[in-house]
Amino acid sequence: MHEFIFHNPTKIDFGKGREQHIGQHLADHHITKVLLTFGSDRIKKDGLFDTVVASLTEHNIAYVELGGIVSNPVMSKVYEGIELAKAETVDAVLSVGGGSVLDSAKAIAAGVKYAGDAWDLFIGKGAVTAALPIFDILTLAATGSEMNSGAVVTNETTKQKFAINSPFTFPKVSVVNPELMKTISRDYLVYSAADIIAHSIEGYFTATEQPKLQSRLVETNIKTVIETTEILLENPNDYDARAEFAWAATLALNGLTYAGTAGFSYPNHMIEHSLSALYNVPHGAGLSVIMPAWMKWYRHKNPEQFKRFGKEIFGGTADEGIAHLEAWFDKIGTPTRLSQFEIDASEINRIKENVAGNAQYFGIADIYTDEVITKILLDAL
Amino acid sequence: MHEFIFHNPTKIDFGKGREQHIGQHLADHHITKVLLTFGSDRIKKDGLFDTVVASLTEHNIAYVELGGIVSNPVMSKVYEGIELAKAETVDAVLSVGGGSVLDSAKAIAAGVKYAGDAWDLFIGKGAVTAALPIFDILTLAATGSEMNSGAVVTNETTKQKFAINSPFTFPKVSVVNPELMKTISRDYLVYSAADIIAHSIEGYFTATEQPKLQSRLVETNIKTVIETTEILLENPNDYDARAEFAWAATLALNGLTYAGTAGFSYPNHMIEHSLSALYNVPHGAGLSVIMPAWMKWYRHKNPEQFKRFGKEIFGGTADEGIAHLEAWFDKIGTPTRLSQFEIDASEINRIKENVAGNAQYFGIADIYTDEVITKILLDAL
Repeated sequence: MHEFIFHNPTKIDFGKGREQHIGQHLADHHITKVLLTFGSDRIKKDGLFDTVVASLTEHNIAYVELGGIVSNPVMSKVYEGIELAKAETVDAVLSVGGGSVLDSAKAIAAGVKYAGDAWDLFIGKGAVTAALPIFDILTLAATGSEMNSGAVVTNETTKQKFAINSPFTFPKVSVVNPELMKTISRDYLVYSAADIIAHSIEGYFTATEQPKLQSRLVETNIKTVIETTEILLENPNDYDARAEFAWAATLALNGLTYAGTAGFSYPNHMIEHSLSALYNVPHGAGLSVIMPAWMKWYRHKNPEQFKRFGKEIFGGTADEGIAHLEAWFDKIGTPTRLSQFEIDASEINRIKENVAGNAQYFGIADIYTDEVITKILLDAL
Repeated sequence: MHEFIFHNPTKIDFGKGREQHIGQHLADHHITKVLLTFGSDRIKKDGLFDTVVASLTEHNIAYVELGGIVSNPVMSKVYEGIELAKAETVDAVLSVGGGSVLDSAKAIAAGVKYAGDAWDLFIGKGAVTAALPIFDILTLAATGSEMNSGAVVTNETTKQKFAINSPFTFPKVSVVNPELMKTISRDYLVYSAADIIAHSIEGYFTATEQPKLQSRLVETNIKTVIETTEILLENPNDYDARAEFAWAATLALNGLTYAGTAGFSYPNHMIEHSLSALYNVPHGAGLSVIMPAWMKWYRHKNPEQFKRFGKEIFGGTADEGIAHLEAWFDKIGTPTRLSQFEIDASEINRIKENVAGNAQYFGIADIYTDEVITKILLDAL
């Protein structure tokens, strides 16, 4: 087991109606004015916005709105948020939405405290040394951003989808009400399932040190996601399945499964980020295309762990494990082929070039050479 | 899944040699003088004390010693610590030892900030509303106290083994170096294994709401403890097994497995606390005596979960699960009979009376009547 520091200070307030506590949570932290970030106007139609505002008002907390944050969130919106937060001198950022809204909120919170161009923080030109306090009400479970310090944003100009990470960008409080997630579309449910499974397997397969305890934790999350996704596809109103799905999403990327492991990397994310950046495909959908192809290429590099995966998750061999996962993606309806995005062989070079940039950034350019990436992409056609 | 708040702010610094960081951790929290609590003088002989003092000195942190804390720690020592901490105006408590030393440190930290008799905090006459910051270097993995807010202490006068719990008694930083644990005696290793399994099964079997995700997390811990105990009995120097054992101990009682569950209780602890309070038996050893007897009595109240336990942990039926666990305790050499403590039938009434007091305290006196406790104790003879 590798040495580690585990420190996750985020408070999770989980359950039905918990969004009504948000004013109290902010008041506990002496917040008086927030930048309220969100995506589409859907939250204004379904009552969530009103509930949040009522709770803020009850605690005399002022707010400024920043709506219109899109999936695969973009730096232009982050810049807009930073300007607004500064002009209005808010003392916190409150995200109401899924991972894209929350990641934008984190980037804004860090950007406000950084003197230079906020993109510097993503490319290692600057470091996050402070951030406005971050709070959120989660409406989609997938990224795990509600209990970690990461934020992924796309720079539309450079076509780079990069991340920040710092001790300052853990949310102070994340409100997770699974009931708010029951209106998620069928597509986004299955993309989210793929996303959580991707978060689970990246470390599980690539770590050079991966204790059994941590493997079991990962398998717990994967089994839960498979089981609850199937229940939710039958009955989107099953609260308990929705809740277990949501909590598995949080546990998959809150540092717990990684504590004690070492040498891991995020190759599936590295490749997928290029698909999102170039074609704006949903992140989870991109991942379900890349994972089976990557697994077929990678399996001989860690045969024992693939054997374990096949047995523990699907009760079969290593090869059956990969085949079953791909078949399960097909069954639930998340893409497994680039052709499903209308991406054909003529695009391989373009993707490959973008991935090459990511490979530098992810620190695994030595393994993921042009040849390797081409092989994986061709297999995913 | 039940609603919950999860907030565990403890920083874990895990790995070889991490005790050398303790001065830095204290300095990070602006600590200038600590009450240094420990058990026997063993730490002065094996070099740990010197390492700690060197790290404190490097960061200009003064210290006052409070040694001599015993297993099943007692209030008289806590009172002594409170007086010393006040007289010396320390600004933190640093525990170097196992759960008993750490629980005493927590009780002292809370007691210093309480105007009345610190025992009030244990019997609900007073509430913990503040505490000195708590830090620790763990030398025995079992209680999970290093990542939770609980502390269990015995009042020798009233023969009560009770607990405190508050948001103020989470350690700020816990240093966990599995290498420091390799000199644990064979007996204490197997008692610790029983203790961790007890922490795991209490909620697992008694919760009225127990999602599968949480059951899987519990099973992860139990499987890890069984596997690593067997490795350590063969080879006490196996670092990785020692490390997984230690981290499983932490995860078994840091709130994670309980988040989303409801209606659970601690009947095995309730009964065992009487054994410790009356006969000063090692806590884990008392638990391994009580668990099989309790399981046989309780199994028909939650047949599905016992079926799950038998299958997931031992690949058998519910009854086989209980029998296998008892056989495993016998095999590793932790007691499974009261007679192994030289407690015979003539003591049943005395134990029963003490348990009756605990049952009130644990809030399950309606279930654990005289008759039920007698039945379980007789079965454990």
